[in-house]
Amino acid sequence: MTQPKNPDFATAVRESFARQGLMTHLGAEIVSLVPGAVTIAAPIRPETGQQHGYAHAGLSFSLGDTAAGYSALSLLPPGHEVLTSEIKIHLLAPARGERLVAEGGVIRPGRRLMIVRAEIYAEDGADRAHVATLLGTMVPMALEPR
Amino acid sequence: MTQPKNPDFATAVRESFARQGLMTHLGAEIVSLVPGAVTIAAPIRPETGQQHGYAHAGLSFSLGDTAAGYSALSLLPPGHEVLTSEIKIHLLAPARGERLVAEGGVIRPGRRLMIVRAEIYAEDGADRAHVATLLGTMVPMALEPR
Amino acid sequence: MTQPKNPDFATAVRESFARQGLMTHLGAEIVSLVPGAVTIAAPIRPETGQQHGYAHAGLSFSLGDTAAGYSALSLLPPGHEVLTSEIKIHLLAPARGERLVAEGGVIRPGRRLMIVRAEIYAEDGADRAHVATLLGTMVPMALEPR
Amino acid sequence: MTQPKNPDFATAVRESFARQGLMTHLGAEIVSLVPGAVTIAAPIRPETGQQHGYAHAGLSFSLGDTAAGYSALSLLPPGHEVLTSEIKIHLLAPARGERLVAEGGVIRPGRRLMIVRAEIYAEDGADRAHVATLLGTMVPMALEPR
Repeated sequence: MTQPKNPDFATAVRESFARQGLMTHLGAEIVSLVPGAVTIAAPIRPETGQQHGYAHAGLSFSLGDTAAGYSALSLLPPGHEVLTSEIKIHLLAPARGERLVAEGGVIRPGRRLMIVRAEIYAEDGADRAHVATLLGTMVPMALEPR
Repeated sequence: MTQPKNPDFATAVRESFARQGLMTHLGAEIVSLVPGAVTIAAPIRPETGQQHGYAHAGLSFSLGDTAAGYSALSLLPPGHEVLTSEIKIHLLAPARGERLVAEGGVIRPGRRLMIVRAEIYAEDGADRAHVATLLGTMVPMALEPR
Repeated sequence: MTQPKNPDFATAVRESFARQGLMTHLGAEIVSLVPGAVTIAAPIRPETGQQHGYAHAGLSFSLGDTAAGYSALSLLPPGHEVLTSEIKIHLLAPARGERLVAEGGVIRPGRRLMIVRAEIYAEDGADRAHVATLLGTMVPMALEPR
Repeated sequence: MTQPKNPDFATAVRESFARQGLMTHLGAEIVSLVPGAVTIAAPIRPETGQQHGYAHAGLSFSLGDTAAGYSALSLLPPGHEVLTSEIKIHLLAPARGERLVAEGGVIRPGRRLMIVRAEIYAEDGADRAHVATLLGTMVPMALEPR
């Protein structure tokens, strides 16, 4: 496990996540949280599907972006946040099943830029398929004191 | 306007869009539809926001992916659909305001692969800001006869 | 024309370009240079080709990366340079002909990150084909005084 | 090791590689070749450098694109080739040292599209640094009989 610069990194991540209206709207929750690696999951429901009932690419992206971003945030000192600069997503297979799981991680924790990734899996009972991979850039920002 | 191979391209797009649960869940609607160029919009609401109340990158991606995909579908013969293979999104500015508008288009309408783009704008009263740009690959698929 | 922050931007770009061994090795030269838009060209020769004699994707990338990077540098104050953070290239058509031309530009000239693009054209006599498009991120860096 | 569909995959790769003028011009050679994983290396020389003498991003891209493409080709039946559709490269660290090594691989060997990757390392004596990562799409093409 990477050493966090914020001893209370878990609270920082959970408080920010709780304020993300889209995550609530998609039914997402944090299922694992260690410094540099955050996993988020959401059910595959009709209201997050595309025209065939599989999970929409937008759901995979939303979970992957968020898991990757909080993986980056978990490595920063207190009083920071991260902004997504750019992300590429590859869709590898149809996202069918009961829930989507996004495992985020940090490839390069730079001071000015953080290179991040996320792997998306669709779980259907005991089956688990790798359905998407994301690779992107996050920008750490120091929050201004109030 | 590009010449469509499906005289009823508008119905093909609208029927597929109507089956996308995520689009309904995000409050999205088609605002413009010509062959090779589809525009989709959705309100920026708390339930589609990130931690500061701006539109989540996942909303920009979802609208941009869908607008780009239907731009591609609008150029295909009857009995086809398109799958997203990969997309890169750059976030250019905070997406604040009343609604998000995604203008999709086709850069290269290949037989095996279609290169697509989408530009995302945030509208706030009379203001309009360019907040994201997407560039990706769609795969046309012939549907099997039933 | 964008207003440059370095009145001698052209010298800054040309001096840096002259030190890029790869550009010389590929036969590249600057053909146009204004603030925020730099065009570079190189001949399509057997030694820059792929297995069919068309220009290698690596030539398109090298010219596009360099044109985009110097487009960014041309907007910076004296004493700066730019580093490529990431770039995506789409190959649109076979790059056949006499020379390859890369037109670089800046989409968003941020203080911390600059979003850039480049369009690659293959010229064959009077013909000109759009063969690739690049979209990427450059990082401006202040050089340390000696 | 993945089972190849072409028992003579190594010859197919080596013959195509030998016809790539750019690989010769850059001093590149194949250092490892098994089905689905091809490694290519080239010296870091002044004529493949950027303005500080490090390897140019164009060298990393050229080697990575080629290693990834031949990783894909090594899995195809006889009489095929692959075309690069799109690739994203992230530059992770300055590429300094004696030589650059590109390890290509296949993430998803689809029939219509093959998702590929490459990792680039700079070797300097006993040191080895991860300097770039590539993620892209290759298109398999059946060659027409003559």
